[in-house]
Amino acid sequence: MRRACVVGATGYVGGELCGLLRRHPQLELATAMSSRPGPFEEPVEEAVEEAVEGAIEGACAGDVQPLDPTRFADHDAVFLCTPHGAAAPLARAALEGGARVVDLSADFRLRDPATYEATYGAPHPAPDLLDGAVYGLTERARPDLDGARLVANPGCYPTAVLLPLLPLLEADLLDPTAPLVADAKSGVSGAGKAATETTHFGNVHENFRAYGVGTHRHTAEIHERAETDRVVFVPHLLPCFRGILATLYLVPRRGVDARTVGATLTRAYADEAFVEVLPTGTPALAHVRHTNRCALGTADAGGLVVVVSVLDNLLKGAAGQALQNMNRMLGLEEGLGLP
Amino acid sequence: MRRACVVGATGYVGGELCGLLRRHPQLELATAMSSRPGPFEEPVEEAVEEAVEGAIEGACAGDVQPLDPTRFADHDAVFLCTPHGAAAPLARAALEGGARVVDLSADFRLRDPATYEATYGAPHPAPDLLDGAVYGLTERARPDLDGARLVANPGCYPTAVLLPLLPLLEADLLDPTAPLVADAKSGVSGAGKAATETTHFGNVHENFRAYGVGTHRHTAEIHERAETDRVVFVPHLLPCFRGILATLYLVPRRGVDARTVGATLTRAYADEAFVEVLPTGTPALAHVRHTNRCALGTADAGGLVVVVSVLDNLLKGAAGQALQNMNRMLGLEEGLGLP
Amino acid sequence: MRRACVVGATGYVGGELCGLLRRHPQLELATAMSSRPGPFEEPVEEAVEEAVEGAIEGACAGDVQPLDPTRFADHDAVFLCTPHGAAAPLARAALEGGARVVDLSADFRLRDPATYEATYGAPHPAPDLLDGAVYGLTERARPDLDGARLVANPGCYPTAVLLPLLPLLEADLLDPTAPLVADAKSGVSGAGKAATETTHFGNVHENFRAYGVGTHRHTAEIHERAETDRVVFVPHLLPCFRGILATLYLVPRRGVDARTVGATLTRAYADEAFVEVLPTGTPALAHVRHTNRCALGTADAGGLVVVVSVLDNLLKGAAGQALQNMNRMLGLEEGLGLP
Amino acid sequence: MRRACVVGATGYVGGELCGLLRRHPQLELATAMSSRPGPFEEPVEEAVEEAVEGAIEGACAGDVQPLDPTRFADHDAVFLCTPHGAAAPLARAALEGGARVVDLSADFRLRDPATYEATYGAPHPAPDLLDGAVYGLTERARPDLDGARLVANPGCYPTAVLLPLLPLLEADLLDPTAPLVADAKSGVSGAGKAATETTHFGNVHENFRAYGVGTHRHTAEIHERAETDRVVFVPHLLPCFRGILATLYLVPRRGVDARTVGATLTRAYADEAFVEVLPTGTPALAHVRHTNRCALGTADAGGLVVVVSVLDNLLKGAAGQALQNMNRMLGLEEGLGLP
Repeated sequence: MRRACVVGATGYVGGELCGLLRRHPQLELATAMSSRPGPFEEPVEEAVEEAVEGAIEGACAGDVQPLDPTRFADHDAVFLCTPHGAAAPLARAALEGGARVVDLSADFRLRDPATYEATYGAPHPAPDLLDGAVYGLTERARPDLDGARLVANPGCYPTAVLLPLLPLLEADLLDPTAPLVADAKSGVSGAGKAATETTHFGNVHENFRAYGVGTHRHTAEIHERAETDRVVFVPHLLPCFRGILATLYLVPRRGVDARTVGATLTRAYADEAFVEVLPTGTPALAHVRHTNRCALGTADAGGLVVVVSVLDNLLKGAAGQALQNMNRMLGLEEGLGLP
Repeated sequence: MRRACVVGATGYVGGELCGLLRRHPQLELATAMSSRPGPFEEPVEEAVEEAVEGAIEGACAGDVQPLDPTRFADHDAVFLCTPHGAAAPLARAALEGGARVVDLSADFRLRDPATYEATYGAPHPAPDLLDGAVYGLTERARPDLDGARLVANPGCYPTAVLLPLLPLLEADLLDPTAPLVADAKSGVSGAGKAATETTHFGNVHENFRAYGVGTHRHTAEIHERAETDRVVFVPHLLPCFRGILATLYLVPRRGVDARTVGATLTRAYADEAFVEVLPTGTPALAHVRHTNRCALGTADAGGLVVVVSVLDNLLKGAAGQALQNMNRMLGLEEGLGLP
Repeated sequence: MRRACVVGATGYVGGELCGLLRRHPQLELATAMSSRPGPFEEPVEEAVEEAVEGAIEGACAGDVQPLDPTRFADHDAVFLCTPHGAAAPLARAALEGGARVVDLSADFRLRDPATYEATYGAPHPAPDLLDGAVYGLTERARPDLDGARLVANPGCYPTAVLLPLLPLLEADLLDPTAPLVADAKSGVSGAGKAATETTHFGNVHENFRAYGVGTHRHTAEIHERAETDRVVFVPHLLPCFRGILATLYLVPRRGVDARTVGATLTRAYADEAFVEVLPTGTPALAHVRHTNRCALGTADAGGLVVVVSVLDNLLKGAAGQALQNMNRMLGLEEGLGLP
Repeated sequence: MRRACVVGATGYVGGELCGLLRRHPQLELATAMSSRPGPFEEPVEEAVEEAVEGAIEGACAGDVQPLDPTRFADHDAVFLCTPHGAAAPLARAALEGGARVVDLSADFRLRDPATYEATYGAPHPAPDLLDGAVYGLTERARPDLDGARLVANPGCYPTAVLLPLLPLLEADLLDPTAPLVADAKSGVSGAGKAATETTHFGNVHENFRAYGVGTHRHTAEIHERAETDRVVFVPHLLPCFRGILATLYLVPRRGVDARTVGATLTRAYADEAFVEVLPTGTPALAHVRHTNRCALGTADAGGLVVVVSVLDNLLKGAAGQALQNMNRMLGLEEGLGLP
């Protein structure tokens, strides 16, 4: 039984990861830590209670302990569910302690530290570690994942956009001059557990809005990993808790239509357990809620090919993909412990 | 045209009141103030925007100005939508300035300052004003309201519970020894606009819970105004925004049943515009949402009489009843400006 | 006081219209009819109760009577809230009776009967009336509306898309070869009051999906009225009740950006009571819920101009705009009776 | 590996059960049938698709086959998720075929066929089988469950009410003359998958209401199994999908309070995996969603003891408890396959 440490266990993603690990046959949740700086103001029990109140299945049922990087060395696997900026020094500590690290923050998602600084408003906290970090879009990164020591878990939106987009760009099916529109919609869990105006029930329920139009930080990640800045990414906030649905509007090359695109995606993911290409129609959030799957569907509309991509932002968009990655890093079967 | 001032205009109730006043034919929204102490950190536009974001119809569209009690004297009517404790000194300032005051906080709801201190954990902030304050459960308080200078607007839950209960107690229809169970459920707007764990979408949506069991502060108000502490009041938090539904479980005297109780309520509220007694069945929240009505229905169940009471907590439970009261205080027609 | 008849009064849109008319100072709700063919199986009271249960503010409080076209002649204004196909013969009867007609179905929205047949799968039910029908996108149709006898009320989605798009096409701000992507999202009330799999709570709540991709009937209406088939329209179903938000992705001509586009829209709607162009940012559904306004906002994103358009699908997208139109047809002030 | 057949696999409960069985280590989902009478009008794929659309985790992924009682004999376990009345003849067929049966309908929940007829409006469909049927409130029925051939799975509401109530009645902690008020609230999944006015999103979302006051069929089941008709049971419909919360208002004997009651419940369920008694406070739906647990909490309020009971109506209130029961009937470990 390998030993895992989850840092940031009281957040939504951390709680989800704890839940997955508790059912994992070969990787146990040895330690759950909270990434809040400084001593705990609340007794541990309350923090746990809060996690349960947060209504995440499988939230940590054991103790959540204060953050202590000196203890990382006692684990095979460290998952960092902290804000960006905070993760990099923890990653360094864990690597030095000999653990493998999946960082679910943005700290190692961008190859270029200048892009990081432009996007996140601060110098990169550990540029020397960037070269060794693998971008963990699992289905596209397997050769690099096996044996990797540091993996940057992709953002939830980039996962939903890149899984359909990358095979289509590689197959050269799309007009190389046209914009690649990605209209994305996420449930509120993507905004995290902090009580803010954004997450107030009165601002979400029976409401809907775009946000970060032209400025959302995931844009840089998508551009870098798709190797094109033609992607126009606009996120919206859905009045629901879980899930991302991205609608892609793609101008195909002559002779390419939804059928061609669907066939290419089907081939690309034929052997994948966690990517499903629907034979017809487009998927709903309900298809993937509480699963680690990304589901894809295609349709023709007015000369464009529309691709709909859905996933559970807390699983395939975060904790689930992180576990896929860690399983591979540890030489375990990739799907272990995943629903 | 009389002039009104709304203090606490950026909250849910204050915003609702601003909306009502903007359509009032004889009482204009002259001034909207925010009760936040100190100078505004945000430009006025943002505060207003926020009110609109809060999704309240009719929220303040004009300027929201810093709190300034010296300006109260320039108004005929002052509505206080502030936390308890903060309201009493503002009420005094407004009264001294010659304005009539409806206080929507708890400061003048309880007759007995000792009960106030026991309930709110601090000495009453203005005990000398208590004698002159009218408890504004409008349909039950008209003689006192006409010409009153200071009215305590009832709590949302007490309004829902007392409107059905008082006529039944007066008619002596109920077993005088049995508990009077009031199982109440409220939408989240009752928890206010502050971003807290309680109001986080992730803790409300697809969730439901009791809270303040045996300890909710509205219990004291209900006990005092029903003149009995036999009422057992338990509130719950609904995954919706607006509305209160209270289910009352009443042990009737021999020979009394739902029909008798319904007939008594029908007689009690026969001429009322804002209290409706259903001829059959029990009302849903949808019956009264966005209205100033309280709807009542009765049914027999296992020897008890069940009374269901519904109202919109922001209207009949707060801003609407406040306007009913102020209309009377000013000698205007009671229903003016109410939906 | 003019006399209005609402046909289809038990549906969501019909109920909304009844509510508006009950508060209208110069046009009274003289008759509410149900468009269900054949004799009523339920007593009138139940049909009304049902409307109230449906949770629409202002739903019909009077009697809902069986459909009887011979009675249309007794009214100045007839509103048809029926399915397409059923409306055209009713429109004919009302016109012959001397009433003015706003048809909220699709029967007179398309100029070309061939397009109608291709879109709705049946020959046009009254091609001889098409020439006299005005397409009632109010802000763009005033000269034709004054004195018109038959107005086709635009679809909810076309209203949200055309209000921002038409001024931009006229001003020639957009690349004339690029697709005009309109990613639209609607609340469930757009699916009507019938109990279907689509409207089942379990299929909507905590779910989200695209539908009618490449096939939705409103596409033909948008194409015809925008005079271009470059619009790519994809609707989605939101887990909320009211509102439409459309996100438009527009490729601008060189030198044109969000500021230019915003300025053009601001000029186009400078004097409009029911179209609001935000000075900065993009609007949320909460901005327009329970109002007759369409709110617009613009932003730059990756070289494209993104325009967000929001409206309440039951008001500006249906009953509200219908009343705007009828007010003009009757020579009344356009905004009478509108929130 | 034992073989299970689920009848009614396209409903919510049937789908949930299929999901559980697919992960069960010793009881496989051999056959999923639909209880709709007559030949399928839809291809099998659509029925399955629909189940997935219904957004139930773990819904049937294999074929759903037409109902065929002659095939029951080929299974060790038959689960009947059909309407009452339809289940009894299927139970007989399954028993005659040698399978063990858990009936999730109401057909065998009531001991007395006269009560059945009074409650369900038809003569009992198989009175000769009643004597052999075990009432499967698992934690209270173990001796009878071991080896049983026919188990009546309790109703969702009765499970939530009886688990806390029975130990308190046995311990004689309650005033034997006072009513036992059970104010219960359920998510919409309890109303089933049929598209009706009750389940229409527009009638549920942002709404709340009591229903079946004094007439709900589960009252008879609670009365019979609690061996008292003093229970006053009123159900309400919550604007959420899953979960039941019941608030019990109990008049204690002198000297008994929430602490006493809590201690008794704690002792009663000390060794139970699926009943949790909170040391303090009362549980929320979020505590038990997607689990097979019933959580209980107690509090004092105005001289009464309030007990709050929560469970997931599709799991502990239906499919989960059914699997608990079947595990025991088959001699397997009771908790196998349960979350």
